[in-house]
Amino acid sequence: MKLFSPNTYINRRSTLKTGIEGSGVLLFLGNEEASINFKDNWYHYRQDSTFLYYFGLSMPGIHALIDLDSGEEIIFGDDLTIDQIVWTGAQPKMAELGAKVGIDKIQSISSMSRYVTNRKVHYLPGYRADHTLFLSKLLKGTRGEIEKGSSSRFLKAVILQRSIKTTEEITTLHEAASLTSKMHLMLMQSARAGLKEFEMVALAQKVAMDHEAQLSFQPIVTTNGQTLHNHFYGNTLKSGDLLLCDLGAESSLLYAGDMTRTFPVDRTFTTKQKELYDVVYRAHQIAIRALRPGIHFLDIHLLAAQTLVQGLSEIGLMKGDPGAAVAAGAHTMFFQCGLGHMLGLDVHDMENLGEEYVGYHENLIKSTQFGLKSLRLGKALEVGYVVTVEPGIYIIPELIDMNKSSGKYIDFINYDLLEKYRHFGGIRVEDDFVITPEGATLLGTPLAASSDEIEFIRQAALS
Amino acid sequence: MKLFSPNTYINRRSTLKTGIEGSGVLLFLGNEEASINFKDNWYHYRQDSTFLYYFGLSMPGIHALIDLDSGEEIIFGDDLTIDQIVWTGAQPKMAELGAKVGIDKIQSISSMSRYVTNRKVHYLPGYRADHTLFLSKLLKGTRGEIEKGSSSRFLKAVILQRSIKTTEEITTLHEAASLTSKMHLMLMQSARAGLKEFEMVALAQKVAMDHEAQLSFQPIVTTNGQTLHNHFYGNTLKSGDLLLCDLGAESSLLYAGDMTRTFPVDRTFTTKQKELYDVVYRAHQIAIRALRPGIHFLDIHLLAAQTLVQGLSEIGLMKGDPGAAVAAGAHTMFFQCGLGHMLGLDVHDMENLGEEYVGYHENLIKSTQFGLKSLRLGKALEVGYVVTVEPGIYIIPELIDMNKSSGKYIDFINYDLLEKYRHFGGIRVEDDFVITPEGATLLGTPLAASSDEIEFIRQAALS
Repeated sequence: MKLFSPNTYINRRSTLKTGIEGSGVLLFLGNEEASINFKDNWYHYRQDSTFLYYFGLSMPGIHALIDLDSGEEIIFGDDLTIDQIVWTGAQPKMAELGAKVGIDKIQSISSMSRYVTNRKVHYLPGYRADHTLFLSKLLKGTRGEIEKGSSSRFLKAVILQRSIKTTEEITTLHEAASLTSKMHLMLMQSARAGLKEFEMVALAQKVAMDHEAQLSFQPIVTTNGQTLHNHFYGNTLKSGDLLLCDLGAESSLLYAGDMTRTFPVDRTFTTKQKELYDVVYRAHQIAIRALRPGIHFLDIHLLAAQTLVQGLSEIGLMKGDPGAAVAAGAHTMFFQCGLGHMLGLDVHDMENLGEEYVGYHENLIKSTQFGLKSLRLGKALEVGYVVTVEPGIYIIPELIDMNKSSGKYIDFINYDLLEKYRHFGGIRVEDDFVITPEGATLLGTPLAASSDEIEFIRQAALS
Repeated sequence: MKLFSPNTYINRRSTLKTGIEGSGVLLFLGNEEASINFKDNWYHYRQDSTFLYYFGLSMPGIHALIDLDSGEEIIFGDDLTIDQIVWTGAQPKMAELGAKVGIDKIQSISSMSRYVTNRKVHYLPGYRADHTLFLSKLLKGTRGEIEKGSSSRFLKAVILQRSIKTTEEITTLHEAASLTSKMHLMLMQSARAGLKEFEMVALAQKVAMDHEAQLSFQPIVTTNGQTLHNHFYGNTLKSGDLLLCDLGAESSLLYAGDMTRTFPVDRTFTTKQKELYDVVYRAHQIAIRALRPGIHFLDIHLLAAQTLVQGLSEIGLMKGDPGAAVAAGAHTMFFQCGLGHMLGLDVHDMENLGEEYVGYHENLIKSTQFGLKSLRLGKALEVGYVVTVEPGIYIIPELIDMNKSSGKYIDFINYDLLEKYRHFGGIRVEDDFVITPEGATLLGTPLAASSDEIEFIRQAALS
């Protein structure tokens, strides 16, 4: 378990306490093991990210609390019994672990209820069913009460703090992105016709595991890139296919990387593929150049959308005024999702705390329109934000059929030509950036992204 | 998603219906996605094994029911909306999926409550918190009522049926064990000083993933083999170390493999290592030869324990009468766990249904004694049972200290010599077997297990 210095955690908690008015206790639930097909058969362990942020320790069976009135900070957890040591080996004592994150008060799990009884308890929204069950028992509330009772004051303070990454966080995010870049390079160098998608996933996962890292999310590695969240890996790579790879690894401090590349199974793109690829890449470049403090990410999203429309118009797939097309939502025939999202301890950073607070705020409400409703981040960028930029073009046959039959976007879409692209697939290019006073800096080792750079690597790999 | 023929599922359900008296409905909860660090970031999907056994379909968002009165069988699930298709791609319709497992009645999830209201509902114990929450809502019961309300009649009938593996199940278990054997061979051929434990895990996982398989449980790959459930992979392999590898993969039909090998990081065992290894291997062989219908697995466990004691006495680590030593539990200084367990769709087959029914019965209650309380299977073997055989010797410093200081097992343990083995580590050898009318058959491709066979592979690998 790698940790920042104790001072990092002490300072983070101190900032949080300063940022929250009022009284009561802040409750931090640690994650327990997650069961696969029976209670004691577990997925790999992952601590809750907010717990990691303030208390660092990555292990089940612990929770923590900050008393806003006394200022007291406590980790709850129990040392192992000899029966447990037989199964798990001797482990550091809780007191020793607490010291590593600047906590000198350790209490047993069974004593928790004593600290919350007759107090105003602030807790964050749960995202695993056992969070609800645990809180329901601890706070003696029904499921409904618990699910409605999370503290928006608490979560807003956490979001405010976690949104701005410090220098030491940027360092570990660099590490995550560099490992992620390495995984992508391995795939770009290894893909060839006849391999299965799952063999590509195996390769990428091995690169991560060779660095003692877990993946930050289930990879998308697919010849059907138009399916946005595709976790099917059963297809065989064929000549003429595009392979879309969207994957990432965690750094040693459990921060996430998240990148996407799309490349041909052959040495080169076909003319059709290169044309559309270059449209996506141009939108990627224009969006990156727009990154700077103060600009709304929503505006960069719309700028990218308009760039896509312009490119698609040059090819003849779209028509009419690009600004009007984007205003009408016609670009969502090709770009159905958002341009990017916050990145940090979570790949969609703090998504469990609510996109309406992470990516928006009281004066900027997320749109409910198809396309924009999938944009996780709309608000103005600040120095220290870490975001992904990931434009794409996705040709979804079911969506064509639906919109065509209802005559939707008829002024902006050339449906006749689009039919010829029906089975084209999908393209996405994604990198990670930190916002700086001057603009933005790429995270991680730079990786081939333009069609020329990609073809260069593919030609070397297949020669 | 690979499936048996529809008839397999039809026949399994038919047998179950015949095996349960009374009225009401049998409820089969399918597993949902399991969240990692926010709701929509998921671990790899794993369906519930009992659901797989009777209804085959491996996907979230579905449940099923058998009406004991009308005989009706229903799968509950919803076809995708166009919004969902954008994210997941077009999928087969529920009706089409139902047909693959012999179900022609599909109903929407929202209609479930209609089928359980005012009926006696039999359900199995949950092992994920969302099972409890789901049932609590569906059946309008409190958490406590739901947790106490599972049907022992239902689970006993399921255990009876799932315990006896059919020929087609044996075939897929062979596949799981062969893939598992292949993973072990890769590790045995690849290990060398300087590598990290996590690099070995990465290699094994890659072999599984190259076959589109998931691991059946979190691997144990460790130079501290004395720690029985060790999921730490941070050590570096060193000359003189033993590496204990306990891992398995799932077959394409999601049945589990589970094998263990322990081998030297060098080309050969040291004399001390070979002596203890041969003791474990002898117990392994003697236990295997004892496998046959009718014999209690508890008796084979005790036979293996006695064989270990005899071997340890020859080395001088134990003394006195082996039978008396085992009766006193003195062997648990070295062998703290059970000889094996049932294997099937789960690596500890049906553990979620309760070891007291799977491995024991009303007239054979599991012991509470240290050592025996960890024996998951005690009852008489039957033709078609699939079991693991996994004796071991584990030198646990904390256990030595505790027992030595209290003078425990003083008549059977040579504590002076044992001190010289304090940091020896642990050894386990494990294979999978199906019980046949004549005895038992090894599952999977045979893999080097004796010290000579292992040294042969290690020498070839390191030359």
